Amino acid sequence: MLHPDRVLMGPGPGNPYPEVIEAFGRPVIGHLDPDFICLLDETNERLRQVFQTSNPLTFPVSATGSAGMEATFVNVLGPDDVVVVGVNGVFGERMCDVASRCGADVIRVDAEWGAAIEPQALLDAHPSPKVIAVVHAETSTGVRNDIAPIGLGKGDALLLVDCVTSLGGIPLEIDRWGIDLAYSGTQKCLGVPPGLSPVTVSPAAISGFVDKPQSWYLDFSMIANYVTGGGTRAYHHTAPISMIYALHAGLGVVLEEGLSNVQARHQECGDRLQEGLVQRGFELFAQEGHRLPELTSALVPSNRLPAGVSEADVRRQLLSDYGIEIGGGLGPVAGQVWRIGCMGHTARQRNVTLLLGALDEILI
Amino acid sequence: MLHPDRVLMGPGPGNPYPEVIEAFGRPVIGHLDPDFICLLDETNERLRQVFQTSNPLTFPVSATGSAGMEATFVNVLGPDDVVVVGVNGVFGERMCDVASRCGADVIRVDAEWGAAIEPQALLDAHPSPKVIAVVHAETSTGVRNDIAPIGLGKGDALLLVDCVTSLGGIPLEIDRWGIDLAYSGTQKCLGVPPGLSPVTVSPAAISGFVDKPQSWYLDFSMIANYVTGGGTRAYHHTAPISMIYALHAGLGVVLEEGLSNVQARHQECGDRLQEGLVQRGFELFAQEGHRLPELTSALVPSNRLPAGVSEADVRRQLLSDYGIEIGGGLGPVAGQVWRIGCMGHTARQRNVTLLLGALDEILI
Repeated sequence: MLHPDRVLMGPGPGNPYPEVIEAFGRPVIGHLDPDFICLLDETNERLRQVFQTSNPLTFPVSATGSAGMEATFVNVLGPDDVVVVGVNGVFGERMCDVASRCGADVIRVDAEWGAAIEPQALLDAHPSPKVIAVVHAETSTGVRNDIAPIGLGKGDALLLVDCVTSLGGIPLEIDRWGIDLAYSGTQKCLGVPPGLSPVTVSPAAISGFVDKPQSWYLDFSMIANYVTGGGTRAYHHTAPISMIYALHAGLGVVLEEGLSNVQARHQECGDRLQEGLVQRGFELFAQEGHRLPELTSALVPSNRLPAGVSEADVRRQLLSDYGIEIGGGLGPVAGQVWRIGCMGHTARQRNVTLLLGALDEILI
Repeated sequence: MLHPDRVLMGPGPGNPYPEVIEAFGRPVIGHLDPDFICLLDETNERLRQVFQTSNPLTFPVSATGSAGMEATFVNVLGPDDVVVVGVNGVFGERMCDVASRCGADVIRVDAEWGAAIEPQALLDAHPSPKVIAVVHAETSTGVRNDIAPIGLGKGDALLLVDCVTSLGGIPLEIDRWGIDLAYSGTQKCLGVPPGLSPVTVSPAAISGFVDKPQSWYLDFSMIANYVTGGGTRAYHHTAPISMIYALHAGLGVVLEEGLSNVQARHQECGDRLQEGLVQRGFELFAQEGHRLPELTSALVPSNRLPAGVSEADVRRQLLSDYGIEIGGGLGPVAGQVWRIGCMGHTARQRNVTLLLGALDEILI
């Protein structure tokens, strides 16, 4: 089987840091081995630093980002609990689906694809919701939703935030912004392959846990007996050892470079990419002032496509001729928008230069 | 951080095959990349061979074995559906917990820890259950439950089997035995680190799917649009790319050696280990005729422990002085039983020789 490498400039995964792939080579040890518990504790402490939180219950869920979404919802929502959900893309939609499967009463607050959610609209949607849920960085549109104002006005509600594409890439302060539950993914701005979902849970959210969540695998109260606490750790499920090695290493790279430096690197790449695209006749899709640097969405200028060539053809050519992956649009903007990521180890100027150069060779 | 290697002779993870760790070094590519889809298809085809099935819906769930359990239950059980569950250890108990969280009507058929479940008792427990569920290889006791007679007598019920510790280690024939839903883990007899749960689902089970399972992440109907089918694959969640490389490689090792040869290697190691333990005054815990070769449970002879030394002390000494991990007992046999695995790459004569030698040095 042909197995070339790629410059991963889609909506995720990005390229992992070389140190992360090295970490996969570590000998596997048991999930109850004291040395592994030590490494897990260190991983969780690194996650706290990257999440900017002191929440004791901070750990990687043993599955990908969407399982982190499900985990945060099922632990605090039971039948008829009210949840307000901001929807301006695929992942807000997914939140509604997940919440409705908990039997919750879902109140949607929609914004157009490409636009940001008005924080006040979320706060006004219901007088006393149990949960207000919103996506920080919408991977389907490249839009950043404001979180801090929701935390300020949330009252007794729990604030649940999707940080899959934001963690590590743009400023995010769990404690200062009043976020109660957050989940992320490893394959975006942390520079680790997909496979885990870092989560963090505030004491207030723990007080709001439902009695016996419908998911056994994602039951935070049971998992807490393994991932936190002192000398004795109760077996819940077998931890994905090698993926935790990888996450541990990726977080190490981020913290060694410095979280704000890593964010600045993402910002600089995004700025250059967006500038370069505009110069080439692309129209940026995300609302100004809410554009993610790590994930750029842009309307493909049809007048720059060679005759008889679709935007999908260009993406295929980028992949086959240059080994560059970029993403197409989803939902209402499928076939019109490209989504270009600069995340993790991909967030290097040279990759922006390469992609723009390749486009100059392909487009007319 | 000290990070020594281990001889993993606990109840799992076992040591991974070297080829598996090598596979982690492969460049990460995207989950919609045609080359990745090709590798995923090949992985699923290898799984079919190891499961001995032609089920099209055969793939690795993107989480560990316990998520495979939850996945198989939530897709076929809704409120008030009747499920008969065989319980003779931790994993049968877990099945009851998971099924009850689906709102199902759970009918337990208990057997003593260490004994096997009577197939006829499962068949007699209810006239028309939707599902009969049982563990093939009980990791908590080292007992093998007979499956084929249940398949023969199941009538219209769906047969759901936990194959976490059996797949690759002992004979298992999904189609011939009439198993409708099975899940496994990667970290046992497949010689891959923990992180994925291979599952296989029969056409009859698909016909029995509930309408909208309570888990979005584990919704087989949605996942099927990504993992099976032809040229177009609908994104559901981001596949754990590197773990799938590892599983692909582990299955390659198993199939190249030959499934029956791998099983024979597990059998030979188990036989030698059990013989060696009996010679040293241990009493085997699992019922005769139902002893797993890949996971041996034995009562620790207290008269062979040095003065003031507990069984847990001996396990700690094995870990610290020899780098050998073995497992303690769970539940009612905690503190009395050891669980010793010879799974995957661990299933080598030299590891049995090493462990018995170490015990000869420690015990009196």
